[in-house]
Amino acid sequence: MVIVGAGFAGLSAARALIDRPVEVTIVDQRNFHTFQPLLYEVATAGLESGDVAYPIRAIFGRAGNVTFRFATVTGVDWDHRRVLLQGTTPLPFDSVIVASGATARYFGIPGAAEFAHPLYTLTDARTLRDHILRRLEDADTDPAALARGALTFVVVGGGPTGVEVAGALAELLDVAVRHDGFSFDRQNARIVLVDGLDRLLTPFKASAASYAATTLAGRGVELVLGHMVNSVDPSSVELDDGSRIRTRTVVWAGGVTVENTIASELGADAGPGGRLTVDADLSVTGRSDAFAVGDAAAVPWGPHSSRHDDICPQLAQVAIQSGKHAAAQILNQIEGRPTQPFRYRDKGIMATIGRRAAITQFPQGLVVRGTLGWLSWLGLHLVYLIGFRNRIIVLVNWSWRYLSWGSGPRVIVGDELEWGPGAEPRRTG
Amino acid sequence: MVIVGAGFAGLSAARALIDRPVEVTIVDQRNFHTFQPLLYEVATAGLESGDVAYPIRAIFGRAGNVTFRFATVTGVDWDHRRVLLQGTTPLPFDSVIVASGATARYFGIPGAAEFAHPLYTLTDARTLRDHILRRLEDADTDPAALARGALTFVVVGGGPTGVEVAGALAELLDVAVRHDGFSFDRQNARIVLVDGLDRLLTPFKASAASYAATTLAGRGVELVLGHMVNSVDPSSVELDDGSRIRTRTVVWAGGVTVENTIASELGADAGPGGRLTVDADLSVTGRSDAFAVGDAAAVPWGPHSSRHDDICPQLAQVAIQSGKHAAAQILNQIEGRPTQPFRYRDKGIMATIGRRAAITQFPQGLVVRGTLGWLSWLGLHLVYLIGFRNRIIVLVNWSWRYLSWGSGPRVIVGDELEWGPGAEPRRTG
Repeated sequence: MVIVGAGFAGLSAARALIDRPVEVTIVDQRNFHTFQPLLYEVATAGLESGDVAYPIRAIFGRAGNVTFRFATVTGVDWDHRRVLLQGTTPLPFDSVIVASGATARYFGIPGAAEFAHPLYTLTDARTLRDHILRRLEDADTDPAALARGALTFVVVGGGPTGVEVAGALAELLDVAVRHDGFSFDRQNARIVLVDGLDRLLTPFKASAASYAATTLAGRGVELVLGHMVNSVDPSSVELDDGSRIRTRTVVWAGGVTVENTIASELGADAGPGGRLTVDADLSVTGRSDAFAVGDAAAVPWGPHSSRHDDICPQLAQVAIQSGKHAAAQILNQIEGRPTQPFRYRDKGIMATIGRRAAITQFPQGLVVRGTLGWLSWLGLHLVYLIGFRNRIIVLVNWSWRYLSWGSGPRVIVGDELEWGPGAEPRRTG
Repeated sequence: MVIVGAGFAGLSAARALIDRPVEVTIVDQRNFHTFQPLLYEVATAGLESGDVAYPIRAIFGRAGNVTFRFATVTGVDWDHRRVLLQGTTPLPFDSVIVASGATARYFGIPGAAEFAHPLYTLTDARTLRDHILRRLEDADTDPAALARGALTFVVVGGGPTGVEVAGALAELLDVAVRHDGFSFDRQNARIVLVDGLDRLLTPFKASAASYAATTLAGRGVELVLGHMVNSVDPSSVELDDGSRIRTRTVVWAGGVTVENTIASELGADAGPGGRLTVDADLSVTGRSDAFAVGDAAAVPWGPHSSRHDDICPQLAQVAIQSGKHAAAQILNQIEGRPTQPFRYRDKGIMATIGRRAAITQFPQGLVVRGTLGWLSWLGLHLVYLIGFRNRIIVLVNWSWRYLSWGSGPRVIVGDELEWGPGAEPRRTG
């Protein structure tokens, strides 16, 4: 059998099949798993790229029945049961788990795909980090760059990712001004968080959202709520009231979509946001040999749940649980047992604003915030980080940053020769 | 005053001027210092990029008199005493320290600059790491790739860098085969170390060189000594006896040159290898307002030395000592004192072959090798790594790798979408 994608969902499925009576090939266009919840830390120079990337082969190297295949999937030939790969021979399967994830959703807003920075892949995060650090360098030497918005950072989207990026940007600017000898004043830097709704963190209770808003505002983040973005260009963002913010940096945290990903090429029914429609057991509707999981699938909340009519949100926990469930159903099929319906076990949701400020909302509705929320957040993310070595490194980094108030990897590693100081943004979508 | 370059030499000069009565601007085209002695570890997936890169601003951020300027130097206008910068206004100076380093030396060998991988910058190291890991992936899925030399790694140059890369490659292959579930046999992988001389490690004693040769051979490295490379192309290397090695990977460790660097644009006299000719006090010959240090300069060994007629080798220690000396002479000039001649204090030379195998040769001629040599090498490199945090991270990484026999960051972070699996090497020099 074949698993398409080694994100949380695909990895969880493959792990559940280690040493079970099935030959598994897991395909990904990257040779590493990305720990997406911490990408915002890479983007804001808090963690190294490698801290959130773990080689897939190192996870399955000793498992006799799980093979990694480094290739880009271009589609599925359902008639011949083959996964199509770019530039090489197709991969035959008897069953397949589609865990191909999602990409940034731009809602057709002009200029967003071209000029805003998404934050879904490690490359996104590295590109954004280099871009931000270069803007600080621009502002340091060129007063005109400051006027052009070099120090104005606009974050679009008030969900957890947007809140996390805005909070981490505030810390990056504090640290840079304090430790890095820049000539500009911290007061000249702006972080603007824009959302079309009139509150942050929609899935959280209103009290948690207002705590986040108050904390962000206290850290210098300007909140522009109840306004949509009309358009993005290389030098500004226009809002729906016609106002314009001069900026060189727009971070796009406006949600994700399955459109334009491999899942949309599969010829299967697409539900909301292009997510693949699945039955109760997570098999793709109309097929028993294909399952869809994680961000790519419209995963049902499941029976006996108070929210059994709902589709699960695109969260790491949903990906992990749905991947594992699909793996178990393939074993059921192999052993001639009926498949079982998926049921999501809600473990709560979390968002962090920064140093000693995070929110954990438990399924029963209890909200823990502040230092205790932050410690819960730290601990949980460390537990879920793949690989003992990565955990140690991240722990050292975090402890060091906390104690020293600084010293993250503020290093521009991008192609410094082809994209020199002062160059225009080179994002092309 | 202006310091051009933030390698060992420029950094050492700038550090010596912190809180002294002089305004210093240090210019570099990268915003980080690169710890070059460990680049081979990055190239062979032993360390992360960030472990050997330290943000320059974080070093001088609190020094009131040292400013960092992120820019690419294009030349010096001696008549008007200005350092010329790419795309922005020149930087005036009353005195300047040229610490612009060197680049790989190809000796005009056809194809070398286009198709071999140098190892002098962090970008070089990252590019080489991605390239090597992609070749392992090619070999895993495609028998034809194996025949085309996907698992043959040719290292050109038997100096410390060549020996280090060859030894580290042997360890990378061992670890990859043991932990990563590749389908190929370790026996199918070749590492070939080529040098025109008939021994390795010329600056070391013959006993040290033969220890290195024996140890490398014991770890599966083929030594081809006494042969020059005639040419390099994307699929092979031709030696001077007409024999051809099919390979996709040529690592160029054939020495460095100052030609084609900014130093060769300065209009000053060039000595051996294009290095700038300097007087005894390290001032550029014929100028009292310019000093040249580190790899860019033909640094004299100095008076009262048994080798006073010699030029120092291009080593980190020479760069550190010459940078500091030039800084002191600028202070002498400012305070109206005569400048002093430079004298190199030889602290010995080191090379590592890998796990529990390294050589330290002290100036008196004593050679320490094996486990003790390796521990000396580890300790010394940790002491010289810039930044407490980097030291902890590197120590954790090394300890972890030693104890676990594996688990380095074998992650392909390059532009995976534009340079997909199976693509041709994209090096263009």
